[in-house]
Amino acid sequence: MSEPVQALFFDVFGTLVDWRTGIASEAKRILSQHNKSTDWLAFADAWRGEYQPGMEEVRSGRIPFSKLDVLHRLNLERILSRFGLQDLPEAVRAELNLAWHRLPAWSDVPFALGRLRQKFRLAPVSNGNISLMADLARHNNFVWDAILGAEVAGDYKPKPRVYLAACEAFDLPPQRCIMVAAHSYDLQAAAECGLRTAHTARTDEYGAGTGEAAPKVKVDYAAKNLAALADQLGC
Amino acid sequence: MSEPVQALFFDVFGTLVDWRTGIASEAKRILSQHNKSTDWLAFADAWRGEYQPGMEEVRSGRIPFSKLDVLHRLNLERILSRFGLQDLPEAVRAELNLAWHRLPAWSDVPFALGRLRQKFRLAPVSNGNISLMADLARHNNFVWDAILGAEVAGDYKPKPRVYLAACEAFDLPPQRCIMVAAHSYDLQAAAECGLRTAHTARTDEYGAGTGEAAPKVKVDYAAKNLAALADQLGC
Repeated sequence: MSEPVQALFFDVFGTLVDWRTGIASEAKRILSQHNKSTDWLAFADAWRGEYQPGMEEVRSGRIPFSKLDVLHRLNLERILSRFGLQDLPEAVRAELNLAWHRLPAWSDVPFALGRLRQKFRLAPVSNGNISLMADLARHNNFVWDAILGAEVAGDYKPKPRVYLAACEAFDLPPQRCIMVAAHSYDLQAAAECGLRTAHTARTDEYGAGTGEAAPKVKVDYAAKNLAALADQLGC
Repeated sequence: MSEPVQALFFDVFGTLVDWRTGIASEAKRILSQHNKSTDWLAFADAWRGEYQPGMEEVRSGRIPFSKLDVLHRLNLERILSRFGLQDLPEAVRAELNLAWHRLPAWSDVPFALGRLRQKFRLAPVSNGNISLMADLARHNNFVWDAILGAEVAGDYKPKPRVYLAACEAFDLPPQRCIMVAAHSYDLQAAAECGLRTAHTARTDEYGAGTGEAAPKVKVDYAAKNLAALADQLGC
């Protein structure tokens, strides 16, 4: 731990923003106007359930890199009929797909990011595309030094290229960067690339008590939330 | 002009920041400590003089994409002996090369960007690399929605790919984006890609009265500076 850390990279979905209640409430808001009703949390879970299989098509090389908005739309098409939504007009599908651009931050995040930015370069290293990250930043008052991650790397986490491209963009060796995430698989992949790692607990990600309360892998820092991580990092 | 503009893209060197006096003063500051003295403005001009030939190696395909920091360093090596600086130690050369990360904004820029950001997505679409743009943003209080440009596109302006990659990153057709620059060649290339264009005069770029006082090509907007452009765009 001799070399000082200079940058923090952040997972976003689940770690910084609450995708589950965010998607549920946006879907309810948009689709209620079209007289649709369903179990909105189940709808959010089903849409998110297609997330990893969708990206695996890219990671495996079966399809060329496509930004997450495109995969989200394909994933949406897969689940609509399960919720009686197969007759939604194109414009409504397009609007619904942008619900991911309006997710709310966990309450501790905006202020803690401000504290962390006093000391470190900050960037999202998410699988979300650049415009999605830019919109989430505006929506939640996140101030980033740059938007890095999947679209800049041309592949999806947990492929090593995504973490390494982020370090390279900031001219830093991996050991001077910390990957921050609420998911152990993400931190393990980052650690295998040489980055340091910080786990933040998001126990309510899939509903109360469902998230990782503690890391399942060895990490450099483990905190109950981002404010606690800022404390640990001396910010 | 029926479709509303949603994003502004900015050239940076010369348009937003004063590279010439910035490089001259940083070179003087760093090299005076090593008892070096020369014509610092001439030094800045010589270093910048290698800029287009350096990028042309990439644009032509003779060398793979290399970020601008790398080209700046190669360009520095080419000019040192002209200024009696051929014996600089490696650490000083490396420090000097980062002078580009600390250039000062023209005085009207930070406040005008803040005004423009109330209405538009903003991103640099510069040939500078991501870390260079991130450092200039911190140094000058620029708030960007994302850092786009050469490193994200993998090529250098005025190649079309750079402008088009920026539009794609923001999910926008080119006609909904304005390229802002003090250089007509940059605006002409952007216009050929379908972007709208705005010229800002920077008459002192290479010394008093040397810069383009007005565009040499047809543009959608022409302004004496960025504050005047914000006025024209109703911000």
